[in-house]
Formats: sequence, structure tokens, C-alpha cells
Amino acid sequence: MENNYERIQNTALRDRVVSAETAASWIGNGMTLGLSGFTRAGDVKAVPFALVNRAESEDFKVNVYTGASLGSDIDKLFAEAGILGKRLPFQADATMRRKLNEGAFHFVDQHLSHTSELIRSNVLDQIDFAILEAVSITEDGFIIPTTSIGNSLVFAQHAKEIIIEINVAQPESLEGIHDLFEPGEQGKRDPIPLTKPEDRIGAKGIQVDLNKVKGIVFTNQMDSPSTIVAPDEETVMIADHLIDFLKQEIEDGRLTKSLAPLQSGIGSVANAVFHGLLNSDFTDLKVYSEVLQDAVFDLIDAGKVQFASCCSITLSEGKMDEVFSNFENYRDKLVLRPQEISNHPEIIRRLGLISINTALEADIYGNINSTHVQGSKMMNGIGGSGDFARNARLGIFVTKSIAKGGKISSIVPYVSHVDHTEHDVDVIVTEQGYADLRGLAPRERVELVIERCAHPMYREQLWDYYNEALTRGGHTPHVLEKALSWHINYAKEGTMLESEKKVGMKV
Amino acid sequence: MENNYERIQNTALRDRVVSAETAASWIGNGMTLGLSGFTRAGDVKAVPFALVNRAESEDFKVNVYTGASLGSDIDKLFAEAGILGKRLPFQADATMRRKLNEGAFHFVDQHLSHTSELIRSNVLDQIDFAILEAVSITEDGFIIPTTSIGNSLVFAQHAKEIIIEINVAQPESLEGIHDLFEPGEQGKRDPIPLTKPEDRIGAKGIQVDLNKVKGIVFTNQMDSPSTIVAPDEETVMIADHLIDFLKQEIEDGRLTKSLAPLQSGIGSVANAVFHGLLNSDFTDLKVYSEVLQDAVFDLIDAGKVQFASCCSITLSEGKMDEVFSNFENYRDKLVLRPQEISNHPEIIRRLGLISINTALEADIYGNINSTHVQGSKMMNGIGGSGDFARNARLGIFVTKSIAKGGKISSIVPYVSHVDHTEHDVDVIVTEQGYADLRGLAPRERVELVIERCAHPMYREQLWDYYNEALTRGGHTPHVLEKALSWHINYAKEGTMLESEKKVGMKV
Ligand SMILES: CC(C)(COP(=O)(O)OP(=O)(O)OC[C@H]1O[C@@H](n2cnc3c(N)ncnc32)[C@H](O)[C@@H]1OP(=O)(O)O)[C@@H](O)C(=O)NCCC(=O)NCCS
Ligand SMILES: CC(C)(COP(=O)(O)OP(=O)(O)OC[C@H]1O[C@@H](n2cnc3c(N)ncnc32)[C@H](O)[C@@H]1OP(=O)(O)O)[C@@H](O)C(=O)NCCC(=O)NCCS
Repeated sequence: MENNYERIQNTALRDRVVSAETAASWIGNGMTLGLSGFTRAGDVKAVPFALVNRAESEDFKVNVYTGASLGSDIDKLFAEAGILGKRLPFQADATMRRKLNEGAFHFVDQHLSHTSELIRSNVLDQIDFAILEAVSITEDGFIIPTTSIGNSLVFAQHAKEIIIEINVAQPESLEGIHDLFEPGEQGKRDPIPLTKPEDRIGAKGIQVDLNKVKGIVFTNQMDSPSTIVAPDEETVMIADHLIDFLKQEIEDGRLTKSLAPLQSGIGSVANAVFHGLLNSDFTDLKVYSEVLQDAVFDLIDAGKVQFASCCSITLSEGKMDEVFSNFENYRDKLVLRPQEISNHPEIIRRLGLISINTALEADIYGNINSTHVQGSKMMNGIGGSGDFARNARLGIFVTKSIAKGGKISSIVPYVSHVDHTEHDVDVIVTEQGYADLRGLAPRERVELVIERCAHPMYREQLWDYYNEALTRGGHTPHVLEKALSWHINYAKEGTMLESEKKVGMKV
Repeated sequence: MENNYERIQNTALRDRVVSAETAASWIGNGMTLGLSGFTRAGDVKAVPFALVNRAESEDFKVNVYTGASLGSDIDKLFAEAGILGKRLPFQADATMRRKLNEGAFHFVDQHLSHTSELIRSNVLDQIDFAILEAVSITEDGFIIPTTSIGNSLVFAQHAKEIIIEINVAQPESLEGIHDLFEPGEQGKRDPIPLTKPEDRIGAKGIQVDLNKVKGIVFTNQMDSPSTIVAPDEETVMIADHLIDFLKQEIEDGRLTKSLAPLQSGIGSVANAVFHGLLNSDFTDLKVYSEVLQDAVFDLIDAGKVQFASCCSITLSEGKMDEVFSNFENYRDKLVLRPQEISNHPEIIRRLGLISINTALEADIYGNINSTHVQGSKMMNGIGGSGDFARNARLGIFVTKSIAKGGKISSIVPYVSHVDHTEHDVDVIVTEQGYADLRGLAPRERVELVIERCAHPMYREQLWDYYNEALTRGGHTPHVLEKALSWHINYAKEGTMLESEKKVGMKV
């Protein structure tokens, strides 16, 4: 690896350059680390690897706070090495998932806008080391982040010491697209002066007491590419229904052709929806989201999206090359913010976002489970979906109507875990259609959810449940003995489908 | 009743005075009404009564939107008369509760800050008549509300026509304590310029196109007094534990003696907590809440509370006399705002409120049910508790550890309905103690909730459940077949207690 001292423009800091091994050696048992990184973008790489190596010959544990999920297999390696005490606020790695579900370490699943407040107000353990990836350190002492900001600002401000990883693989052209705003202490803060997605309200980088910078490490490794899956038949249908809904909103005079700033979760459905916008009549769109995926850049290229605000850029391999080698085309159309600002209820409500997130399952009354498979097993975490859905103009949840080849219905009588209550869920979309639940009482929602969202193979079974529930009465009728029976059947018989189950039993 | 034309200072409007019967006669079948009124305060009285009278000889239905619950038995009379199509966003009347649980009309349970957005963006049916209680109409055409503001501003702005009830029983000294701020359309609005509970940011009253005022009715009837219950042994213990927690926060350097602006739900526990503050060391307190109850005025009298912002004042009979006959003592320490502003996520987060609300039940992982008895039967509604808990500095939930003489444990393995997810619940307090859940993973929370909050009679049974759940694994371990068994047992056997149940079965 090439040490590029030019990237440390503040020359006083140049003598702090150390190897990743040296930096990792400073980390003691029981310490708390704040790592840059959000959805595989902008994560520190070398120091975590060195730390994992230390675990081969040493017993220790650290708490790891991040922006969101890390790339470069770091979450996997940390989980395998068994060095985690507490991990927060989000993850998305299969090995980490397995380990945390075994209770191997404590995972704290938080709203992504909340972590910074808990750090600022000293509720969480103080961070010993903030370890932050940077493009460069400017002469005036700003740390310039790379492809994500995440929680890096609050980590840097509140950590006892800071380690910087200057990643020479990250293009210097990234300098200038960050906007670091610190809201200040609760009770003493002013309004956040942002009224449009494109507003710049903060600094070009992270400003810290440079005495806290204990070491600087050079790295030379691109972000992990996104693991995005191309649109399939169902996700295209979901996108089409969602676009139909938005068109109807225009027809009803509630939206214009430029819609409202869009937020979209990550994953294939989200990407498919944005792809769908390419061929739509919508124009002059803006994005105010967490993560920008490939499709947003296609929309910028097509002139559909005017501006995109985010807290991280996560691209597939090809797209990464394309975007970063033509970065001048995008520079004035992008801004990266701390996740506290990208996900801030104040901004989300003010801008009136259209928020699109993915559910694991929804119930007939519109409650959403985004996180817990069968009520217990954590998938990834709530992420920013709660920040957005609660405060947006439109809280839209998308999901395929069935999973596991139809053995699971994603529309159930009673979700096995609630992340988003009926109060926060405006519209549910599956490949079957969309259900607009706004302003409806629970009993009014049932028909829409069953007839427009559930897979036909499960509709009768859902009606059977609801009709029996009606005999019990109540605002939100349920048959408590059967409420979770679909999940219990799946666990025992491998299917939620009654008819299959009976057939199975006959054999 | 005395018509006091002096209260219609805008003389051009004086010829619009009509009887309540005439005003009620304008209301047609299928219309949507927006009524003033929030937690028994400031509700219109005469026109609703006249409408109920019409129902004796006529078949019709209306949709009724309010601020929150109405007083003067209007919710009861509407429910009994069978004239409701849809009712939103909150209610708290026993008869209305029974009827809506029978499905007699559609009740839409909403976050109290959300209704205004849904009206402003034309998602809900347009309001035909806003019917608003007023102290007076000023010469410059402002409608001065009485003891609550609720949703009156947005109702007045978006209704086709307006009926004003001037209530001469409401003292004119109320003029000047209101602060009506309209945030404007989402996407086009500025930050809400409020940074302290005492900031005044709006107008003295509701300004509307006076051509929309179709009629003015005089009334002379005080608000219904609050039905507050005096602190009992348990609520005093809850208050004591809560105060211990706040003291600990001061000791840990996270709060000062003036705490942070306080929000408290209504009801006896909330009132007991505020009573508890009277004898505490806390000083220079501020309140930023929805409803002010008796105890806040005692705290103002004692010099403990410097300022209180609210959207309604609901007092007991004696306190009402006392406060309104000495109103000059309180005038500069109070402000009434629209519920959109009292409950606005932007303000709640900025001020860093300490938010205290009451739960029906909590589970061992910290999920809260505030609304649905046994998962189905609506109690009142979520009210503002979600606006507050999600965005506050501290989302605190209080409940007695048992209900119905111990037949029900308010701490259960799995709540039968979720209003507040574990992500929004910071602290749970019962008469047994408090559990500070901040920054803890689900498995870390269980011991605190069981040992500090559950009633001793249920602790072993909770541990039994959790220990079995642990054998199943997962981030949030559950035994799905038994998750709702406590509620099912209560429904079938009249108790959640296993030992009693078995005894019962032996007999
Ligand atoms: C909900 C979430 C897991 C869906 O992810 P996705 O990749 O779009 O969805 P998929 O349909 O591919 O499903 C993922 C897996 O869950 C399984 N699944 C889907 N629905 C399921 C259900 N109801 N029950 C059990 N498993 C289910 C799928 O079969 C698939 O399993 P596999 O990995 O073994 O193939 C993901 O969006 C998420 O983590 N959301 C929460 C955070 C969030 O919203 N972030 C965005 C805003 S910040
Ligand atoms: C939750 C809520 C109903 C509690 O009300 P409360 O009057 O303080 O509490 P109580 O302990 O007196 O309980 C009220 C009733 O519920 C019953 N109850 C309490 N816990 C119960 C449980 N776990 N299961 C079933 N019933 C329960 C009580 O026995 C009592 O019944 P009764 O009316 O037949 O005597 C009330 O606070 C509420 O509606 N909250 C939601 C809205 C809100 O938070 N608003 C404030 C902020 S805006």
C-alpha cells in the first residue's frame, strides 16, 4: 500500500501515521469503538482487520457502534472472532445474524436517527476510539469522509481518541459533497435550517480537536460492492403498483408530477421501484434518503432526478467505476449528510417525504414486522424505517405477498413482531396490488389488505380468521388462540397453508 | 341563556347569530364535522346537543373529527344516538368505547399530531362544518378559542363553513393565552421557530375567511370537570420511583435540577407524578405537554413550575373556579397551542422532552400496549403518546404492575397489541420500581423488567416463560405457542396466574 502523505494536508499530523497493527494494538479489552460505515460504504477496513487478527492469539471483547451495516466482511469477521460485547445500531450480515440470534453478543437495534442523541447525552458507554475512514485531512484540520457519513461526526466529537484511515482508493473528487451539521444539545438547539433536499447547512468535513487524533493509517481498498439483485417479475409488479398509486395521488390533486422528496430503503424492491420511475411520467424528482443505490444514478443520468441527498452511496461494482470516474457529472446533484440529519424527524416531516420501505410481513390491520422472522429471529434491524414511516407524508411498505415458495404468507392475521404500528402505515404494496389504508378504521382495512395485497392462495384462510374474529368483537377483532397459529404451523409443519398442512397430516 | 353581543366585536358578524337548533339543522346526512374540544376542554356544546335531539326523529350519520375526547357527555350522546359514521382521532368515553368495540361506527385511532397533516393534504374527507367554541370574535376577525385549541385551526381553515359557539361561561380573561401557528404545506414550510416552551410564534386567535362563518350560537356552560382520581398508594409509589430515576439522571450528569421540559399524559398516575414533584428538590421546571391538570397549577403556585405550554386545560371542579377567578396569576405562565404544535416531533426532539405516559401492559422486552385490552378491545386511543415517546429525550411509561386485583399482570411475556415498540421505550416504572432500558439488548432488558417492574406474584411465571423461550433462541426469544397464553388464560379462567388457574381447575 502506498502512503500518500499529500492527503494529510495538515502537515502537523503527518507524524501520526502508523501501521494498522499499531493502531489496533491500542484497543484494549472492554473498550467501545465508533466505526465509520453505513450500508457497506465508507467503512474503515485496515484497523478492524488488524483487530480481528489480534483475536487469534488474544482474548478480548469490544463494543462496536457504527452508522449501519459494514462492508468488507467486517461484521462477519468480528462475529466469527467472538470479540463483540455490544453491537449497534444495525447490521445485515448472515454470520453476524446467526451469532446474535444465538445470543453470542448483545445487539441493540435502534432507530438510526437515535444513536447520536444517546451518545451526545452520555446514555451509551463513552467511545474510546472513533475509527473513521477519510479521503483526506485538510490543511484547516477537517477530516473529509468518503462514501458515507453515518454517525462519524458524533463519534469523532464524543470519542476520547480518534484513529483515521485515509483510503487512497477513494477518489479525492469526493471532497466537497459532504455537509456536516451538528444540531447541538437537546434543549439548547436551534431549528435545523434545511427546507429543501439540496440545502447545504454545515461544514465540508468533520472538525475535531486534532489533539485527539492518535493515529493515521493508510489503506487502499474500495468499498464492497452492493449485493443488489436485479428486478424480478414480482418486484417489477410491486414497482408498477406503487407507481399506479402515485399516479392516482396526482389525479386526486394530492401530488404533482414532481411528487415529493423520495426515500427508499435498500434492497432489490427499492431498486426496482426506482427503476420503474425511469419510464414514468414523473419529472424533476428529488431524493432525500439514506442510501443511494444504482438506480438513483440512472435516474440522474436520465434527467429524472434533479438532486439526491443521502448519508451513503452503495453501488454495484460496475456502477461504482462508472460513477466515480465521472464524478464531476454528479457532484452538484449530490450531498452526503450525517444519518442524524438524513433521518431526522424534523426534516422528514417538514419536507413531507414519500417513504418506501420493505416489510417481512404485514397483518390484516396494517401492522408491520420488518425485523423478526417468526417473532424471534432478527433479520437485520429496524434501520431508518421507523424514522421515516412515522414522520413521512406517506409511509409506504412493500413486500412480496408470499415467501419460501408460498409456504409463508407475508400477509398474516397477526404479525409475530411489530416494528411499525397501524398508525404509521399508510400504504401496503405487494405484487398483487396496493392497499391505501389512510384514514381507515381497522375493520375497514381488512378487505383492502386481503383482497389487494394477500396472495390468492391465502385469501380464504385470512377471511376465515377474520370472520371468526368478528364473532369475538372489538375495535381490532382477533382470535387470540389462533392469532399466531400461522407462524406456529410454519414452525411445526413447514407451511402456513391449512390445506397443505392437512394433506401433510394425512400422509 | 344570555346573548352577549359584546363578545362579537366584529359587528358585521352580529347578524349571524342563530339558535343551536337552526345551526344543527344545516347539518346533513353524511356530512363531516370538525369539532373543537380536547380532553373535556373547550368543546362545543349547544350544536352537538341540538344534533343529538334531531336524531330522535331523523335518521342520519355524520363523521366527527375532534381534537381529542369531548366533555359534556357529547361522545356518549353521539354514540347512543347512533349518528356516527366515522370518529377520530381519540375518545375516552365508556359508552362510546362499548359501541365502537361492537363495530357500531368506525373509529380511527391516530397520533394526535397527524390529523392536521391528513386534513391539510386532503387525505381525509373534507370537513363540511367546523364547529368551534370561542370566548369571543375580535374586531379584526380572530376567533378566540376557550380552554383548548386542539385541531380547531386546521378545521377552520379547511372546512367549507364554520359555526362558532360563543360560550359566555368561559372568562374573557382567556384572551391572550393562545398562540396559533400554522406550519403550512409540507415541502413548502419553514422550520417552526420555537426553541423554548414559552416562545410565542403565532397569532392570538384563529383567522379565517369570515364569509365562511355561517352561524354564531351563544352558550353558557362551563367545561366538564376532569374526572381525576386522587393519588393512591400505588400511584404515589410510581411517582416516587420515577423521581428516584430522575434524581439518578442528575447524579449521572445527564440532567440538571431543572430537568427538561416535562410532558405528562392525563389520568391519575400522571397527576400523582406531578404532585410528587411538589416535594422534590427540582426547581425552575417547565412543562411542554398536551393537557394541564390540577397538579401543574399547584406547581406554578409553589414556584416549582416557571412556565407551561399545552393545548388544553382540564381541571377538577374546585380547581377550575380557583384558576379562572385568579387567572391574572397564571396568564404570563401559560400558553395554549394547536395540538399539531404541542405534539410536533420537530419540537419534542428539539426541546428534548421528558415524556411520561401510561401503559395498559408492557412485555418483558419493553414493548408497550396503551390501547387494546386483550389485543382487541379499544380503551381510548394512542393519543399523543406516540408523538411524544418516539421523539422525546426520555420515553417513560408508567403502569401499575397488576390490574383487576391481581388477576391481570401488566407485565406479560408478549403484549397483546403494540403501540410503542422497544425502540421507543426508555424507562418503565411500576409501583415495584423502575427499569432503565436505554442502550440494552432484548436479553439484557428481561431481568430488569421482571425484577424491578413485575409484581412478585408473577415473577416466577415470567422467568419460566423466558427460560423456556431461551431454549428456542433468537434475538428476542419467544415461545410462540405460549406467547399469548396469559391473555388466553385470563379470557378463559379469569386470571393470568398459573397457580390460581390450576387451583380453579381442581375445584
Ligand atoms: C425486511 C427486509 C429484511 C427485506 O429484505 P429484502 O432483501 O428486500 O427481501 P427478501 O424478499 O429478499 O427477503 C429476505 C429474506 O427474508 C425471507 N422472508 C421474507 N418474508 C418473510 C416472512 N414473512 N417470514 C419469514 N421470512 C421471510 C425471504 O425468504 C428471504 O430469505 P432468504 O434470505 O433466506 O432468501 C429488509 O428490507 C430489511 O432489513 N428492512 C428493515 C430495515 C429497513 O427498512 N431499512 C431501510 C430503510 S432504512
Ligand atoms: C393506558 C390508559 C388507558 C391508562 O389509564 P389510567 O386511567 O391511568 O389507568 P388505570 O390503571 O386506571 O386503568 C384503566 C382501566 O384499565 C384496566 N387495566 C389496566 N391494565 C390493564 C391490563 N393490562 N389489561 C386489561 N385491563 C387493564 C384497569 O383495571 C382499569 O379498568 P376499569 O376502568 O375497569 O377500572 C390511559 O393512560 C390511556 O388511554 N393511554 C393512551 C393515551 C395516552 O397515553 N394519552 C396520554 C398522552 S397523550
